[in-house]
Parts: sequence; structure tokens; C-alpha cells
Amino acid sequence: MKRNLFITFEGPEGAGKTTILNKIVERLHQHQIDVLATREPGGIEIAEKIRDVILNPAHTAMGERTEALLYAAARSQHFFEKVEPALKQGKHVLCDRFIDSSLAYQGFARGIGIDEVLAINEFAIGKRMPDITILFDIEPAIGLARIHAHNEREVNRLDIESLSFHEKVREGYREVVKRYPNRIKVVNADQSIDLVVEEVWHILKGILGEN
Amino acid sequence: MKRNLFITFEGPEGAGKTTILNKIVERLHQHQIDVLATREPGGIEIAEKIRDVILNPAHTAMGERTEALLYAAARSQHFFEKVEPALKQGKHVLCDRFIDSSLAYQGFARGIGIDEVLAINEFAIGKRMPDITILFDIEPAIGLARIHAHNEREVNRLDIESLSFHEKVREGYREVVKRYPNRIKVVNADQSIDLVVEEVWHILKGILGEN
Repeated sequence: MKRNLFITFEGPEGAGKTTILNKIVERLHQHQIDVLATREPGGIEIAEKIRDVILNPAHTAMGERTEALLYAAARSQHFFEKVEPALKQGKHVLCDRFIDSSLAYQGFARGIGIDEVLAINEFAIGKRMPDITILFDIEPAIGLARIHAHNEREVNRLDIESLSFHEKVREGYREVVKRYPNRIKVVNADQSIDLVVEEVWHILKGILGEN
Repeated sequence: MKRNLFITFEGPEGAGKTTILNKIVERLHQHQIDVLATREPGGIEIAEKIRDVILNPAHTAMGERTEALLYAAARSQHFFEKVEPALKQGKHVLCDRFIDSSLAYQGFARGIGIDEVLAINEFAIGKRMPDITILFDIEPAIGLARIHAHNEREVNRLDIESLSFHEKVREGYREVVKRYPNRIKVVNADQSIDLVVEEVWHILKGILGEN
């Protein structure tokens, strides 16, 4: 490989992102490919503290602009404290959620506007967009049913949004794909995990092979 | 008075802003002028939580962009939850620190750039700039000496910056004044509190009288 890549996984809750990311990291390691797997807030103390403020279910009065700025703040800290140093050390970085989440959730679904949310995120991270993004697409109702069935983790402030909010998020992601058709690869997440992993592996192998 | 005003007080620590603000509010009340006095984070729970993250002395790794985004987030919440409702109820609002602090501290002194920090703050509060701003100007060394002499409150992460940082903040405020020469009135804060209060009262009386 000639250069290290910044890869992000995107999609709604229940799409299987985290499970698939772990399986992909395993494979990369089997191929002796050095990768840092992370997710916002990524164990960065300042970013964790910011996330606590965002996701606290008691914070029902939180404005959508406050929310968007907090995500951008946490992203900036995680990026400069963890992602960029790893890239500089020559690792690939695989990050579970990044800027496109803000564009879809706050920019589109909350109605602030994708351009406005993009601008504050460019403030946060400069022009450093991911090299490649995998978007796991799934019907919101199916994704949400998976979360509730598995009961994987505590319910947070975003989970308790209505189904129509999560449908807007999906539409938001589609808008984001229109803007970045080369960067973002859409994968159908409504298949068995193994099939999805194969599809992602195929995409990444192609890109890593080109390097 | 024909319309209610959004008034902000700006300047470095030790300039006497808070003391003067209290005395001005007293006078306004004596004149039966309805005013809400506030300061960021203004008792707004979400904004208080954000401020805790910003000012925690343990957070030495905080990036300057993270800091600027957090201030903008807290400002947005305080503005929409407290300032705007008061203005809509027909009150004047007098706020201790607002957008110009971010322009001077993060935009200029931290070196991010005034335009960039202005942009994220416009995201935070829309185009709703203060109607009038009083800038309390003082030599940083004198201001800092006042804080240490009075030992008024706990030392936070910004107090422990070097004197040269605080000198840059002063220069930053001067740059901001150049951009908004009509909105911002500069008052020499290196006088007795009573003299400064008279000067501020004279300015505000003129403006409130015009209304």
C-alpha cells in the first residue's frame, strides 16, 4: 500500500455498523494491515464529557444548534487527539461514525441545513474528509427493531426520537450520498452480517489494493 | 422607550464588568426600566454543563477549535433559552460577555481567525448581534493584579494563561472594535468603579432615551 486511508462507517442505529467494523478489523489484522479502529468519542476524555452532555436524556431543552455544535466540538477533539496522530504514524484509521452523521442527523433530519452543518464541521476538522465511507442502508423500522430485540445498550436521547425522525435521517444520508458519490459506497445492511461483511471487504480490498 | 435592547458588556477579567453591571442594573431598576441581567452560561443547565467541560483545569489537551465550538454551543443554548424569550417579553437584556469574547479570545488570541469564529457563532445565534456593547478596556497586567488581589473566585483554565495571552486578547478586542465601531463603545476601565459606572450610565441613558 502506498498511503494510509481514513475510512468511516455510517448509517442508522441497528444497521450492524459496530459488529461489521470489528469483523473487518479482524480481517485487516489477518492480512497484516495496521489499522486503528475508533469511534467518536473514542475514549478521548474531553470528547466523552461532551458526549455525556449531548446524550443525557434529561437535556430535553437542548437546541438543535447546540447539539450540532457539541458534536462538532467532540469530533474536533477526537480527530486531532486520536485520528490524525494515527494517520501520521502511517496507520489506516477506521472510524464508526464521523461527519456524515452530523450532516444527516443535524443537517437534514433536524432541519438546520446540510451546508450549515458542513461549515461548522469544516471549522472543526479543516478540510480533512474521510477517504472512503461505507454507508449501511436499512429501513429505519428494521434497524430500530434490531436494537430493541438485542437490547444491546442503554437507550439514549437520540434513540427515543420517533420513527419519522429516523426516516428523515435515512433521507438525509441519501442527500449526503448525492454530494459525495465517489467517496460514499452504499451497502444494503438488510442482509445477514456475513454477507454484509463480504461486501464491505470486497470494497475495501479493492481500494487498499489500489494503494 | 420604543424598543427593547440587547446590551452586552465585554472586556478582560479584572476590568470590573460584573460589579459595574450590578450597579447599572440597580440604576435601571430605579428608573423603572425592566431589564434582565445575565451572563453566559446564565443558569441554563445545559450551558453550565458545557462550561464545566471548557473550564476544567484538567482539560489541558483541549484543542482551540474544540474550545471555540463549545463556547458557541453554550452561547446558543443560553441565547435561545434565556435571552431571546426575555427580549420577546419586551425586556432589555444586559449580558456579561457574549460573541465578542469568542472573537477576541478564540478568534484572535488563540489564532483561529476572527472570521472563522464569527461564522460558527452566527451558526449558533443567527444574525442576532447585540444592539450595543460596552467594552471595558484595561492593561492586562492591571486587570490580572486586581483578580489576584481580590481573590474573588476559583482560578480557571483561562486565568492561568500567560500575560502575553491576555495582551493578545486586548489586541483582539481592538480588532473587533474596528469591525463594529458603531455597536461597541470603549470605556477606560482603569478608573474608580464610580467613574466607570457614570460613563456607562451616560452611554446607556443616551441610547435608551433615543428609543
